[in-house]
Amino acid sequence: MTHSDSGATAPRPGDEPAGASVVAAEDGTRAGISRRGLLGWAIGSGVAGIAAGAGGAVAAGAGRGGSAAGDEFAFEGAHQAGITTRVQDHLHFASFDMMPRASREDLVSLLQDWSYAASRMVKGLDVSASGAVGGSPEAPPDDTGEAQGLGATGLTLTFGLGPGLFLDEADRFGIAERRPAALADLPSFVGDALEAGTSGGDLCIQACADDPQVAVHAVRNLSRIAFGRARLRWSQLGFGRTSRTSADQQTPRNLFGYKDGTANILADDAAGLADHVWVAEQDEPAWMAGGSYLVARKIAMHVETWDRLRLAEQDRTIGRAKGSGAPLSGGAEETEPSFSGSAIDEHAHVRLAHPTVNDGVRILRRGYNYVDGNTELGKLDAGLFFLSYQRSPEQFIRLQKRLSTDLMSEYITHIGSGIWAIPAGAQRGSYVGAELFS
Amino acid sequence: MTHSDSGATAPRPGDEPAGASVVAAEDGTRAGISRRGLLGWAIGSGVAGIAAGAGGAVAAGAGRGGSAAGDEFAFEGAHQAGITTRVQDHLHFASFDMMPRASREDLVSLLQDWSYAASRMVKGLDVSASGAVGGSPEAPPDDTGEAQGLGATGLTLTFGLGPGLFLDEADRFGIAERRPAALADLPSFVGDALEAGTSGGDLCIQACADDPQVAVHAVRNLSRIAFGRARLRWSQLGFGRTSRTSADQQTPRNLFGYKDGTANILADDAAGLADHVWVAEQDEPAWMAGGSYLVARKIAMHVETWDRLRLAEQDRTIGRAKGSGAPLSGGAEETEPSFSGSAIDEHAHVRLAHPTVNDGVRILRRGYNYVDGNTELGKLDAGLFFLSYQRSPEQFIRLQKRLSTDLMSEYITHIGSGIWAIPAGAQRGSYVGAELFS
Repeated sequence: MTHSDSGATAPRPGDEPAGASVVAAEDGTRAGISRRGLLGWAIGSGVAGIAAGAGGAVAAGAGRGGSAAGDEFAFEGAHQAGITTRVQDHLHFASFDMMPRASREDLVSLLQDWSYAASRMVKGLDVSASGAVGGSPEAPPDDTGEAQGLGATGLTLTFGLGPGLFLDEADRFGIAERRPAALADLPSFVGDALEAGTSGGDLCIQACADDPQVAVHAVRNLSRIAFGRARLRWSQLGFGRTSRTSADQQTPRNLFGYKDGTANILADDAAGLADHVWVAEQDEPAWMAGGSYLVARKIAMHVETWDRLRLAEQDRTIGRAKGSGAPLSGGAEETEPSFSGSAIDEHAHVRLAHPTVNDGVRILRRGYNYVDGNTELGKLDAGLFFLSYQRSPEQFIRLQKRLSTDLMSEYITHIGSGIWAIPAGAQRGSYVGAELFS
Repeated sequence: MTHSDSGATAPRPGDEPAGASVVAAEDGTRAGISRRGLLGWAIGSGVAGIAAGAGGAVAAGAGRGGSAAGDEFAFEGAHQAGITTRVQDHLHFASFDMMPRASREDLVSLLQDWSYAASRMVKGLDVSASGAVGGSPEAPPDDTGEAQGLGATGLTLTFGLGPGLFLDEADRFGIAERRPAALADLPSFVGDALEAGTSGGDLCIQACADDPQVAVHAVRNLSRIAFGRARLRWSQLGFGRTSRTSADQQTPRNLFGYKDGTANILADDAAGLADHVWVAEQDEPAWMAGGSYLVARKIAMHVETWDRLRLAEQDRTIGRAKGSGAPLSGGAEETEPSFSGSAIDEHAHVRLAHPTVNDGVRILRRGYNYVDGNTELGKLDAGLFFLSYQRSPEQFIRLQKRLSTDLMSEYITHIGSGIWAIPAGAQRGSYVGAELFS
């Protein structure tokens, strides 16, 4: 039975995720209710829903429809979902700025409201208990409705905090002293041509799902919840994941036609994740423990120029064979490349990206291909929306300094950039980022 | 075994679609070879491949990879695929203009080359026999390679001819006298705010597939083949089909959250298709028999404004209930709406779009949702990429004149428009549009 078919106007306890109970616990400290009123949130049923969920039992989440809803990933946990989660097929990434007069209370309430809504949507539920059609006909629906019947389809929602929140001149959010030392705008790299319209932002949301409509629905409804507190700065759709986090996922291909992400850190590599991805207890600041740092780079790929290269030159540029993905030093896709001979060029991408020439530095990549239509000159406006997670931004900086002069850099231009601190996962009864404000 | 794994440099007869034999038959009449040389087409192996396929047997099409390749739809047939074909999950639509000095021969050879490439790609094959990695390492690969291993995934490629080809002042293409009388730019409708960058075009390609990377790959490679003859004018990605052509497809939802396309003409409705979609033998001109007319409209949806409407007002605007999709006059989704009472507003979308108030006029819709990021004001740049097929453009004009003043028109703006004649399907041994030039 779907929400839309039920005609229910009262929340059903079984639909309430446990995350709601946490937000309820924080409820007395925020002024979010009045903003919810502006948005047409059905306060009565929402509160009732929270109360009903406070018992703490997590229902299995029937989802919006009875049809196959695909995978469902938990929102709560030691780490946020969407990092080591097997890479879903589609991305909607969104960057937000806090409104000019927004306060600390606004930021906290926004993270709480986002966490509550996210904990529902990842189960395939509407954004609130009254949903798209369960509220009063005399009020705007809480949920915009286009994902009804689509189920969870592997949705994950990952939230990040940008440097601007900590570097605010007036310290409006009261967190200046808690800034991680490494959380600052990235340095300029050779060849960068960054555009403000696809760079930076106080907050980010990475929405990944196996159905693009589900990812778009999530970003749209979270934007709506942010009304009056934060505003969408830029956003990006992506398809065709360009990496994998699980050995049973096939290595996908980027728009240069090459297998990408063969040597990524995989979700079952606990030591690799501990060393390279998760912020450790002993790292500063303490509130980031269990979190990570996200770097996003919008990388335009000059595919028409690339497509005119001889196959041998394409292979030399990458350092791998286009068909099999095997390193030019021999073997198969999974074979470690050998840099001792001359088979792999001194400036091949695979060499300059490799941990052995970067003091062992590794990152977890999670990018997507994008096509934004075409330029006025009739060229495809396409490329890679690069996303990487690392224990420290220094890892990305180290690698990018080297890669900005590799052979491939002739055929790409970095046009967007952003960095965000990714807090640990929300605990049952809390919200993403709670450790920062406690 | 995939192409890339095979390492084959010679074409394998079993990979050749029968469509290739037709192009070979026309080969003596065109100058495409030299252009293929510019593009790095492997002439030798390509011709060999054509010869091998000339026996006429159609291989099952092993596809690019051994993995599940999804549905495969035939390229040849009485009608082009992609019209009544069950609506796939993703769209890449592209509009092209002929180059200023292009000739009739250029246009014919382009349609032949496109037909050949399309007949391969819909089988999950590379764009030519030498493909992404099977040619000389000293030449650019024929195929850009990003779809290797992805299979057919239900790809269809539908080609259209715009009014500009027939209305060329110098009649460069020699087809002015063969213009269908109704093939002309659409009239202006109330509220239109069309942008040249998403309107018109001499040629169009509708690429639909269940994997967006496969649709993007097809448009990219067809653009590449067009080099020197035609140039990409504009293109559009879409997801979340907004209609269905088969009763066993669930009715999808548009970005207003409503089920869309409930009353579409279905693929098994032979009488409906004959009356409303296919150009008949007795219709003028004769070369269009078995074809159709395609209208594309890029419709921006002001979702933030819509989302602030009361549910009852949203329902009144559409004339259906948001949850179930049932008409407000009662019943379930599939129930015919009744316009005799006052349950459905005089200006509701469902009423003004209905055949009973439009002298029985119907169209076959095949649109997709789109999200092109966001505007500088932080609003989602989103809407419906409307596609409809009809026996005559007059059907669309008739409906749109009425719909441009319905209640929903307050919340949408038509920002792009195009119309193309869709020739019948390619016959075995011929190409799309052959009847026009014979």
